[in-house]
Amino acid sequence: MNLLITNDDGIHATGINELAECLAAKHNVYVVAPDIEKSATSAAITLQYPLRIKEHKPYKMTNVKKYYHVNGTPADCVKIALKVVFTGENQPDMVISGINHGPNIGIDVRYSGTVAAAFEGAFAGFPAIAVSAAIPFNEPGHVPKFSAAVSFIRDNIEKLHEKCIELKNKCVLNINAPSADYEQIKGTRITRLNSSKYRDFYKEIFDPVDRTHYWLTCEKIQADVDDFTDDIAVKNGFVSITPLKYDQTDYEALAEFKTL
Amino acid sequence: MNLLITNDDGIHATGINELAECLAAKHNVYVVAPDIEKSATSAAITLQYPLRIKEHKPYKMTNVKKYYHVNGTPADCVKIALKVVFTGENQPDMVISGINHGPNIGIDVRYSGTVAAAFEGAFAGFPAIAVSAAIPFNEPGHVPKFSAAVSFIRDNIEKLHEKCIELKNKCVLNINAPSADYEQIKGTRITRLNSSKYRDFYKEIFDPVDRTHYWLTCEKIQADVDDFTDDIAVKNGFVSITPLKYDQTDYEALAEFKTL
Repeated sequence: MNLLITNDDGIHATGINELAECLAAKHNVYVVAPDIEKSATSAAITLQYPLRIKEHKPYKMTNVKKYYHVNGTPADCVKIALKVVFTGENQPDMVISGINHGPNIGIDVRYSGTVAAAFEGAFAGFPAIAVSAAIPFNEPGHVPKFSAAVSFIRDNIEKLHEKCIELKNKCVLNINAPSADYEQIKGTRITRLNSSKYRDFYKEIFDPVDRTHYWLTCEKIQADVDDFTDDIAVKNGFVSITPLKYDQTDYEALAEFKTL
Repeated sequence: MNLLITNDDGIHATGINELAECLAAKHNVYVVAPDIEKSATSAAITLQYPLRIKEHKPYKMTNVKKYYHVNGTPADCVKIALKVVFTGENQPDMVISGINHGPNIGIDVRYSGTVAAAFEGAFAGFPAIAVSAAIPFNEPGHVPKFSAAVSFIRDNIEKLHEKCIELKNKCVLNINAPSADYEQIKGTRITRLNSSKYRDFYKEIFDPVDRTHYWLTCEKIQADVDDFTDDIAVKNGFVSITPLKYDQTDYEALAEFKTL
């Protein structure tokens, strides 16, 4: 298959390179990723200025067919790849965004550049998946492992491709694997997004002339605890797959909302 | 009411100032908006560096209670306002994002910083609306008019507040008014998002050393043409109100997707 691979952690991130190298053994891999980290950029796109797309052969990366970085967001990368890298008959069979460094579960999906990039693939009519290694935040001593996520994609890429087509490319498959070795994975769960929220905090920082600046951090407020949510699946050692839709209309609210 | 008003066009934009001034005649208005234009930044938030929030009394703006700008995104503005501006007993009764310069209909909602800011209000448990003046793109000679959008909010703010509470603040009301005088408005339509898409184009731009840069532009591909969509409502001279939800799980796909 022709695979377009992008991410939001930037072209130098471990996750995207482990995935690209692994898949390049069997597929035509085109990497088009942001030149720097673009975490939490959601579906931001660049309209105010033009973008550069720059070819770049990374050190020791031999099998990847093409490798580019872009001075834009993850969504920009997919848009520009589909117009500039893939032309004429040469089209991707699938868009893969990841491996993200950290989970994209529940409300994370709203802020995630990784998930937004996969949506761009789906909008353009291609099978599209987002893949994350659920590396825990603030867990001292945890050694991030991409091997479960990478090996799961390697072994299931044809099935995932087929499933996207079966669902008419109308949704994105949002995949979260535990940050673990592949052998530790207990199986796969098809899930919904959990409804946990973030509680925000700002750390006050003082600049050299003593003005206050506010640095955002947050903690998750636990919500659902059932087995059909993405977070519980991952916590229990499963790979979680959540189908995401792009129509954000609230049809339930619409049904009971007839006039103002 | 205590109103938190933000936007994505930046604090100097006409839309937010017309709205703030009009509502300040009857309400306590707190403006917290980006210091520069942040169109198409979606739900991007700033995690990599701290933000400044700066009080600023604008020229000729007399009734607005507080007025701040932030060197971040629209979503950042709401997050920081809810932690730094509103403290203790002093809380907003409602979050209003707009008036956006241009429509936020159909797929626009994904990229819109205006809509994302309203979602931040809803996440925090407040009634939240996004308001846009559907100023057409690329229509030479069209004079943008915010009057219909501003007057509609002024006259319906209590009803909109009540409706959000009735819907348990679980959705955002996404409002699009024609770019017109208030007298020209034919009424209100409760709508769903239309399913049109964008076709992307890149204009090639050459820099001083003749390297190619790509500047994104797009045209809308018309899809739905029925009266229950946001775009048709606005085209026919109505104010469109679409309830938006934040759970992006595709439950339809989930129902038929049991295993990989």
